[in-house]
Amino acid sequence: MGIDPSLTATGFGVIEDLPEGYRVVAHGVIKPSPRRPMPQRLLKIRDGIEDLIRTHLPDEVAIENPFLARNTKTALILGQVRGAVLVAAAGAGRDVHEYSALEIKKAVTGYGQADKTQVQHMVKVLLGIEDQKLSADASDALATAVCHVNTRRFQDFIQDGKEPERP
Amino acid sequence: MGIDPSLTATGFGVIEDLPEGYRVVAHGVIKPSPRRPMPQRLLKIRDGIEDLIRTHLPDEVAIENPFLARNTKTALILGQVRGAVLVAAAGAGRDVHEYSALEIKKAVTGYGQADKTQVQHMVKVLLGIEDQKLSADASDALATAVCHVNTRRFQDFIQDGKEPERP
Repeated sequence: MGIDPSLTATGFGVIEDLPEGYRVVAHGVIKPSPRRPMPQRLLKIRDGIEDLIRTHLPDEVAIENPFLARNTKTALILGQVRGAVLVAAAGAGRDVHEYSALEIKKAVTGYGQADKTQVQHMVKVLLGIEDQKLSADASDALATAVCHVNTRRFQDFIQDGKEPERP
Repeated sequence: MGIDPSLTATGFGVIEDLPEGYRVVAHGVIKPSPRRPMPQRLLKIRDGIEDLIRTHLPDEVAIENPFLARNTKTALILGQVRGAVLVAAAGAGRDVHEYSALEIKKAVTGYGQADKTQVQHMVKVLLGIEDQKLSADASDALATAVCHVNTRRFQDFIQDGKEPERP
C-alpha cells in the first residue's frame, strides 16, 4: 500500500505483486473537510488509513519521504499529516518504508525529474488503469507502491538469487 | 492537560482547576527510544498520550502552536509528533486548544519573552511543585495547561459575569 500524505487530499493505492504483474486492488483519496478544525482533519486521515489497512490487509506500507518542503509552515502541516498516517500504519502493525520522490519517479518513469503528468501516464500504463480521472494524489500513491514492490523484488533477487518477476 | 510535543521528550502536565487554586494531578515526559524507527517513536508518543487521557480523563487538551520552526527539517519532525499527539487527543474525543509560546509565557510569567528557566521557576511557584528536578519539557506542558485554564476562566467570566477565581 502506497500513501501520498497531504492535508487536503491524501492519496492511497493498494497493489498486489503477482507473478504475471501488478494487480491494482484499490486507489483513491481521503479528503477531510477544510472547514473542520485541524485535529479532526488529521483524525479523518488516520481513520481512513486504518480502515484501508483493515479492509485490504497490505503486507507493508510505503510513503514518500519529503526531501524538502517549501517553507517551515508547509513542513509543519505536512509533518502533522505524516504523523497521523505513520501512527495509523505502525499502530496496525505494518512496517513502513520510505522512498524519496526521486526513487519513486525513477521506479515508474525511469527518470527522477519526471513531472506529475508523466508519473500519472506511466502509472496508468504500468498498472493498466483506464480511468481517465485517476487523480494526481492517487497516482503518486500508486507510484510509491510500485517503487516499494520493485525494491522488494530486487531485494528478494539479491537474497535468494531468484530472478525478479517482470510485469 | 497540557502537552509540549517533541520527538525526544514530549512533556505532559495535568492540572485541576479548583476554587482554591490549581491542583497538579500528574506531570512528566514521554521519551521514545532514539534507536527505534520513526513510526515506532511516534506510536510510543501516541500511546502515551492515549494512556494519560484514559487515566486522568482531562476535560480538554492544550498544546503549543509553534510560531516558527528553525528550518523545514525540524518543522517536519515536530509536525509528525504533533500529528501523533493531535490524533490521540481528538481520537479520545478531547477538544484541543492551541496557544502561542508568547501566550503561554505571558500566562505564567506575565512576560512573553521569558526564558525556559523563568517559566520553570514560575510554574513551580504557581503550582506549588517542590520537585527540584521538574524537567523543562514537563514544565512547558504545565505552563500550557495553566495558560488554558486562565483562558477558560476569563471566558467564563465574560460569559457568566462570574469573577474569575484566583489561585
